[in-house]
Amino acid sequence: MSRDNAEKLSFVNDYCEAAHPSILNRLSETALEKNPGYGTDAICASAAEKIRKACECPDADVYYLVGGTQTNLMVIDCMLQPYEGVVAAASGHVAVHEAGAIEFTGHKVLTLPEHLGKIDAGELDALVAGFYADGNYEHMVFPGMVYISHPTEYGTLYSRAELEALREVCDRYRLPLYLDGARLSYALASTEAGDCDLTLADIARLTDVFYIGGTKCGALFGEALVFTKNNMPAHFCTRVKQHGAMLAKGWLLGLQFDTLFNNDMYVRIGSNAIRTAKKLKKALAEKGYRFLIESPTNQTIVIVDNKKKAELAEKVNFSFWENVDENHTAIRFCTSWGTKDADVDRLIEIL
Amino acid sequence: MSRDNAEKLSFVNDYCEAAHPSILNRLSETALEKNPGYGTDAICASAAEKIRKACECPDADVYYLVGGTQTNLMVIDCMLQPYEGVVAAASGHVAVHEAGAIEFTGHKVLTLPEHLGKIDAGELDALVAGFYADGNYEHMVFPGMVYISHPTEYGTLYSRAELEALREVCDRYRLPLYLDGARLSYALASTEAGDCDLTLADIARLTDVFYIGGTKCGALFGEALVFTKNNMPAHFCTRVKQHGAMLAKGWLLGLQFDTLFNNDMYVRIGSNAIRTAKKLKKALAEKGYRFLIESPTNQTIVIVDNKKKAELAEKVNFSFWENVDENHTAIRFCTSWGTKDADVDRLIEIL
Amino acid sequence: MSRDNAEKLSFVNDYCEAAHPSILNRLSETALEKNPGYGTDAICASAAEKIRKACECPDADVYYLVGGTQTNLMVIDCMLQPYEGVVAAASGHVAVHEAGAIEFTGHKVLTLPEHLGKIDAGELDALVAGFYADGNYEHMVFPGMVYISHPTEYGTLYSRAELEALREVCDRYRLPLYLDGARLSYALASTEAGDCDLTLADIARLTDVFYIGGTKCGALFGEALVFTKNNMPAHFCTRVKQHGAMLAKGWLLGLQFDTLFNNDMYVRIGSNAIRTAKKLKKALAEKGYRFLIESPTNQTIVIVDNKKKAELAEKVNFSFWENVDENHTAIRFCTSWGTKDADVDRLIEIL
Amino acid sequence: MSRDNAEKLSFVNDYCEAAHPSILNRLSETALEKNPGYGTDAICASAAEKIRKACECPDADVYYLVGGTQTNLMVIDCMLQPYEGVVAAASGHVAVHEAGAIEFTGHKVLTLPEHLGKIDAGELDALVAGFYADGNYEHMVFPGMVYISHPTEYGTLYSRAELEALREVCDRYRLPLYLDGARLSYALASTEAGDCDLTLADIARLTDVFYIGGTKCGALFGEALVFTKNNMPAHFCTRVKQHGAMLAKGWLLGLQFDTLFNNDMYVRIGSNAIRTAKKLKKALAEKGYRFLIESPTNQTIVIVDNKKKAELAEKVNFSFWENVDENHTAIRFCTSWGTKDADVDRLIEIL
Repeated sequence: MSRDNAEKLSFVNDYCEAAHPSILNRLSETALEKNPGYGTDAICASAAEKIRKACECPDADVYYLVGGTQTNLMVIDCMLQPYEGVVAAASGHVAVHEAGAIEFTGHKVLTLPEHLGKIDAGELDALVAGFYADGNYEHMVFPGMVYISHPTEYGTLYSRAELEALREVCDRYRLPLYLDGARLSYALASTEAGDCDLTLADIARLTDVFYIGGTKCGALFGEALVFTKNNMPAHFCTRVKQHGAMLAKGWLLGLQFDTLFNNDMYVRIGSNAIRTAKKLKKALAEKGYRFLIESPTNQTIVIVDNKKKAELAEKVNFSFWENVDENHTAIRFCTSWGTKDADVDRLIEIL
Repeated sequence: MSRDNAEKLSFVNDYCEAAHPSILNRLSETALEKNPGYGTDAICASAAEKIRKACECPDADVYYLVGGTQTNLMVIDCMLQPYEGVVAAASGHVAVHEAGAIEFTGHKVLTLPEHLGKIDAGELDALVAGFYADGNYEHMVFPGMVYISHPTEYGTLYSRAELEALREVCDRYRLPLYLDGARLSYALASTEAGDCDLTLADIARLTDVFYIGGTKCGALFGEALVFTKNNMPAHFCTRVKQHGAMLAKGWLLGLQFDTLFNNDMYVRIGSNAIRTAKKLKKALAEKGYRFLIESPTNQTIVIVDNKKKAELAEKVNFSFWENVDENHTAIRFCTSWGTKDADVDRLIEIL
Repeated sequence: MSRDNAEKLSFVNDYCEAAHPSILNRLSETALEKNPGYGTDAICASAAEKIRKACECPDADVYYLVGGTQTNLMVIDCMLQPYEGVVAAASGHVAVHEAGAIEFTGHKVLTLPEHLGKIDAGELDALVAGFYADGNYEHMVFPGMVYISHPTEYGTLYSRAELEALREVCDRYRLPLYLDGARLSYALASTEAGDCDLTLADIARLTDVFYIGGTKCGALFGEALVFTKNNMPAHFCTRVKQHGAMLAKGWLLGLQFDTLFNNDMYVRIGSNAIRTAKKLKKALAEKGYRFLIESPTNQTIVIVDNKKKAELAEKVNFSFWENVDENHTAIRFCTSWGTKDADVDRLIEIL
Repeated sequence: MSRDNAEKLSFVNDYCEAAHPSILNRLSETALEKNPGYGTDAICASAAEKIRKACECPDADVYYLVGGTQTNLMVIDCMLQPYEGVVAAASGHVAVHEAGAIEFTGHKVLTLPEHLGKIDAGELDALVAGFYADGNYEHMVFPGMVYISHPTEYGTLYSRAELEALREVCDRYRLPLYLDGARLSYALASTEAGDCDLTLADIARLTDVFYIGGTKCGALFGEALVFTKNNMPAHFCTRVKQHGAMLAKGWLLGLQFDTLFNNDMYVRIGSNAIRTAKKLKKALAEKGYRFLIESPTNQTIVIVDNKKKAELAEKVNFSFWENVDENHTAIRFCTSWGTKDADVDRLIEIL
């Protein structure tokens, strides 16, 4: 991971800034108020109520956790039976970039091909049907739930029709469908911008459980896990504690989501990232750059020749994505809730 | 867990306030600065350097984690061999109040009797010697490390001589000695106040690994784990990730400890809690209350009759500790870095 | 573990001989018959039917496993929820002599005091009631099932009244009751001999799951696990495979139990051990030896002075049990299904 | 799993017969001899010595376990660091047919493409090199050992050159190389027959650990694990116990391998299977059948049209392998140490 240089422009990731000022202000103002521990406080309850409204899911159970990998492993470990694995795209975060955290809980990740980071309902159907058609299936890992991310690791989005198709397969085999929303505010802002037709209410309706990402979407840290079907695992808080994942001062999480869900701030935060990313994508296209993957959200994955890459690296921090050929590399620019237009303009100038 | 009432006095715990204002101010001031992730930033490095100096342990490895149970399970799981268990007092946090988090990592907690929350070096020696004297020891759990807390769960403290005696036994059997310092600022303030002779440098010298508690000692959250003998487990950050315990914005932890270790702020924070607790203990003694356990730190565990308890509960939030007899209950008052003299005075008045 | 000497008498354990000849004969006669794998064969089904009849439990599910620790960990891991632990006597095999196999599956062993190796229903009730009375119980390990052994590790036996009392407590808290019958044939032979009033049908009626020991009771190896309440965990065979505990040639287990449950052979095998143990106990009492623990079954735990112990060790193999004082040691003589009267007579002579 | 019918021919698998008569005879003859437990006996030592000689590896550590999946998970769990996974062919037994037993120990299986069931040294090199070239590798699962099977799951064999090439890559990255020899006698018989150039001594020299299969090669059950480089994991027997994998009567395993390694019996047992399989393969080729995969060992995987398959199923038990197209299926005939020429002749006639 390249270290930032304070004087350089930075488009490395969307978790490089601490938090939106309104969160920090509220934290400062309430610093000496005393709250009960472990999320049993009134602020957590208030945030949960706002989330239930935003999701149009009045019965949802909301539980706050600190980070994304932690949330993924808690959901997967607690919702699978011990003999089950989770189905995910080969490019899914749980399959590649979590240091084996899912396997560490004892569960296999069963992979499907990725199509721009997404899985296909037909291929999911074939995988599960094929499993049960095998006379020896009791000697194999049962497909026990489906993991998707939205936006995906490539910044792409599921349409409502695609999610409905996955839902239908999941219903057929009684598989819970889990959506990793680490960057959900950017997806929702894309829907707001007309680039996607999937709403927060759709997500709550079509999945069994999903999480609303805070870490990459304006919070200091934190993810809000939403169980949509009265399906929160029994004694979930004990299991959270057992995994070492319980925050003593649970209200710190509640306070952040209570702020983010004030007056649609969560979507507005995403819109800034989308708007600045679009400006950048447009400029890149006009300058003749090719994209490795085209996506409507805040990640821009573009192919540069290696000489250009070296030049850029002197002035801008970005992420290496992958080697394309001997002379070309795919690199990623990430905008965020905090990205300033001036910085994007400077980046475009440099490019 | 009793819910606080905003208008009532609260002495429930030492993690009821968010954080010391100097931490929140610094967070606000730097909210939009961009930092690299996962603790690879300059602030984490700066804090680690301050901690090494404070510990007089120039080679120490410092790693920041979010919470106490998480830190305990990471240390124990990563430093034990799979066939080993951790030795702890029967009253130790890892033995009782972590929802089986240690066993969940596959390791048994081997218990010793507690003496005011502490373990005895002679009894530790007997346990380990007895293990190896048993002809069938390969069918049993090997004692693989020793866990102590300082202050203990009862607020008591180890003396330097007691810690040296434990060290000697650990050396004899090559057992790493781990000290849980969830409330370490209160212990260090006690040493400053002359109630204990164990310094931070002693702790670094006599243990193999320990942690400096942030959550209960002025930070929003966070614990600084210190490996004192060039003994940080290989690829520790991968293992942290694998346990779901890695904070993406690692510098948030560094920033808090960098602030806490400015000009001895960490000890000063503890001193406020000790001073106010002493005022309370003195008043209680004068009023004829009996203590369940006498301790010099910020926890005050006192015996009240049940009628009195009910009266108190209307005006003050405190913790239930244990039933003493049919008519008496032990309850706990906790002071903290943020406790105000006025509140203690009001509590004394009520008592 | 002391190595046997072929010429010496051996009373070390009850798993020192291979198997009852009728089992080996049947194995030899059928060596080249072809059977389907994994216990799906007709012999396993036949043995299960015989066991169901012997237990007077027509709906029981029977599953064969290879060894005792394996059986204990499979039952406990598969019947507990992840946040639960198993309650056992402090002297229970799962608590002491299984190398932490239970904790290795992630579950804590919650111990009760042992009374001649047994647990007390009142103390069990107090433990569970105390757990739920603690306001912080969600931060602790839930008591999730009860483990007992019959005969116990000391050779003692539960009476029907004692087992009924445990059952009542288990019913109150909906805890499954599990009975480890590693040496069950010796318990059943004791009932036959009038030393105990607990029958196999009682055990099936009063427990949720138990196992009929083969390894120590005439089989080459193997234990028959009996789920008595239509409560075999879902996809149990997949979980057995996942633990590496599935025997490819499952019918080898079925064949042994099918033989052992022919014409009460299982109880007759136990009777030989009981009869020879009683002869030994009587002779020891007459010679003035004191017993550490008096038990009606095939283990005889007797106190000898250390000089005598050394003399004995030249002629007889036995087990060290524990040091009694500086000059005395408790040692154990074990008889088995294969013990010959001539050997017991020689042992008595030597004593 | 299709159930055998006693009157039908059976070529379902190579673990359908109990054991070679010489093993059962020896078991019967020694049934009442008393042995110390847990493999500490003289027979286990004798067998280990014979194995060391056969392997030309005088320092090898030999440990006996009951079954194949158990052996695989013990080796992989005990030889990997917690942050490491095992590299295997996508068709490897550990990747597909062990019900997730490897992931259940916390380790990911990192797959390589299979080439007739084998992995390619160049592709292994690329996988490991690519891992370390990724700047984020600490967030991913480290490749920690290499698993191969010989014969593979398809009955194919590694040549000496292929194994040396894998060894070279393993040396470059310090990866232990593990060979699963569930059907090793059939591989060794192929070498004897001139179809392969890899000897038992080569295997011991080129791998770090491998196992000599008993279950499928004439034993009742059991696998002999051979650590060739003074690299048996510390306290391995405690870890075996902890996994529930320890056989109390360890000598039962020793006795079987002591018999199998008498006068090359282990290779002779394989030769019968190879000879009868060759007869079958030759006849099939002459009759114009196509093979899905050609292999020199005891598995014959042949393509039949579905009408033929249905006819065959009335007279012969075989295994379903995979659907080839709408009208054709690949089925498997397995010969074994016990296959009779008369049965093969009848099968050929039927075909």
